[in-house]
Amino acid sequence: MNSFKDGWFSEHSTLWPGQCFSLAVSKVLHQEKSAFQDILVFQNEQYGRVLVLDGVIQLTEKDEASYQEMMAFLPITSHPNPEKVVLIVGGGDGGVAREVIKDPRVKSVTVCEIDPRVPEVCKEFFPTLSSSFSEGKVKLRVGDGSEYLASFQDEFDVIITDSSDPIGPAACLFEEAYFQRLQRALKPGGIFCSQGESMWIHMKIIQETMKLARQFFPTVSYATTNTPTYPCGQIGFLLGSKSVETDFKTPAWKMSKGEVCAMQLKYYTPEVHAAAFVLPAFAQKLLSD
Amino acid sequence: MNSFKDGWFSEHSTLWPGQCFSLAVSKVLHQEKSAFQDILVFQNEQYGRVLVLDGVIQLTEKDEASYQEMMAFLPITSHPNPEKVVLIVGGGDGGVAREVIKDPRVKSVTVCEIDPRVPEVCKEFFPTLSSSFSEGKVKLRVGDGSEYLASFQDEFDVIITDSSDPIGPAACLFEEAYFQRLQRALKPGGIFCSQGESMWIHMKIIQETMKLARQFFPTVSYATTNTPTYPCGQIGFLLGSKSVETDFKTPAWKMSKGEVCAMQLKYYTPEVHAAAFVLPAFAQKLLSD
Repeated sequence: MNSFKDGWFSEHSTLWPGQCFSLAVSKVLHQEKSAFQDILVFQNEQYGRVLVLDGVIQLTEKDEASYQEMMAFLPITSHPNPEKVVLIVGGGDGGVAREVIKDPRVKSVTVCEIDPRVPEVCKEFFPTLSSSFSEGKVKLRVGDGSEYLASFQDEFDVIITDSSDPIGPAACLFEEAYFQRLQRALKPGGIFCSQGESMWIHMKIIQETMKLARQFFPTVSYATTNTPTYPCGQIGFLLGSKSVETDFKTPAWKMSKGEVCAMQLKYYTPEVHAAAFVLPAFAQKLLSD
Repeated sequence: MNSFKDGWFSEHSTLWPGQCFSLAVSKVLHQEKSAFQDILVFQNEQYGRVLVLDGVIQLTEKDEASYQEMMAFLPITSHPNPEKVVLIVGGGDGGVAREVIKDPRVKSVTVCEIDPRVPEVCKEFFPTLSSSFSEGKVKLRVGDGSEYLASFQDEFDVIITDSSDPIGPAACLFEEAYFQRLQRALKPGGIFCSQGESMWIHMKIIQETMKLARQFFPTVSYATTNTPTYPCGQIGFLLGSKSVETDFKTPAWKMSKGEVCAMQLKYYTPEVHAAAFVLPAFAQKLLSD
């Protein structure tokens, strides 16, 4: 099967051999080869618009909230006072920034995206995600996130790495040097959250990345969310804190039902937050300290 | 795309239009047309052996525990004393029975499977699932589960409906008459657990089925599990109790870590049990009383 055939887009990858998820294409909306990657946007009747980078589904309108909200609120609510600066490495679609600025404590967010075409394409085709770029609190910077990070010390309260998989442009975001930079760039008590791959097919990557993170952070944890259009319908988040006091399962800011409703959250609640750290027996065994 | 092409099996269905999951086929092990359905068994390098009925993936060796263990232990541990009789409607692969008899309180299990070829094929190709049929506690009965159920009153402590989707032979297991029979066949304080479909694509079916169940049971709840080879990587369980006292989130039998380990559980833990009832904001809103 090719990735694009007979009216279907199929997501083949060496990262998930032997399995493949496909979505019917009712209309191709955009296709280009940027300086960094292939960018594809198409319409699917059930999932709405779909963003694909280098042949891998990044988000669909129907289920993006299960990823964006969790990636934003797991770290943000775990921080007692993330008021000054939040950095998002990657995240060029604007979705995580859109969620982060819903926290009224957050004063400023920088999104550092390597590929300038991603925000531009998303501004055109995913206005509900990229609208965050026109908010005063959000600053978009085009550049290499890992290099950008290297220039800071004790600067950020929260750093979110909203990356694609560890092949291609995002590979460096899963390496030792990156966690060292995260540690240096975060203020005391600072928290990071990185895209953490799937416990069903990437256990070895998760174990190795957690081991790297534990060299620099005293508190490291893995949380999970259910996103239908990601491989195995599941993706994880790797969270770490410079403080031994951080208890990721018990958020410092526990939203009320009224706040969840006012912020129009589709997936995240404080109960979902706590449950995200409860792993199946097999994963618990392999990922415990 | 056909369902079987170029070395891949693809799961197309009108129950999940516009999306399709595929598994590479390294070897077809068995293929037949029984009196009730098409039965297919093939080998996939990553997921092991795969059982397919009428073109729909029922289980794979790699991830079956996430379904079988939850389907067994969510209801069984919620019952204070499920000692006498447990009925499994469907479940012809033997997997749920294998888990249920791990509870030492359970004295007897009847599996009522409509298609005699399913247990026979599973005995040959899935010995780790169907081995339960050779256990003295487990009785296999071939017949229509719904009809069988109609002949009982106040008989069972727990009834588990391990069915396929509500088209084809399993359609009646999602109807009002079935819940009425469940109510009658269960003893006071009795508990049922039925395959409950996916919250991402079958919300209307879930809402309607819960409404039916609530006509006959004072306590009804929906729990979720993450099974990579089911549509959206997620499937739910519909649970109900004849007792208003039943609190599904807090199991009557809370397994110790030693028990989880001794029973060789891969997915279920008491913490996973509680977390399974925590639903994303959108589902919580649509499925609350």
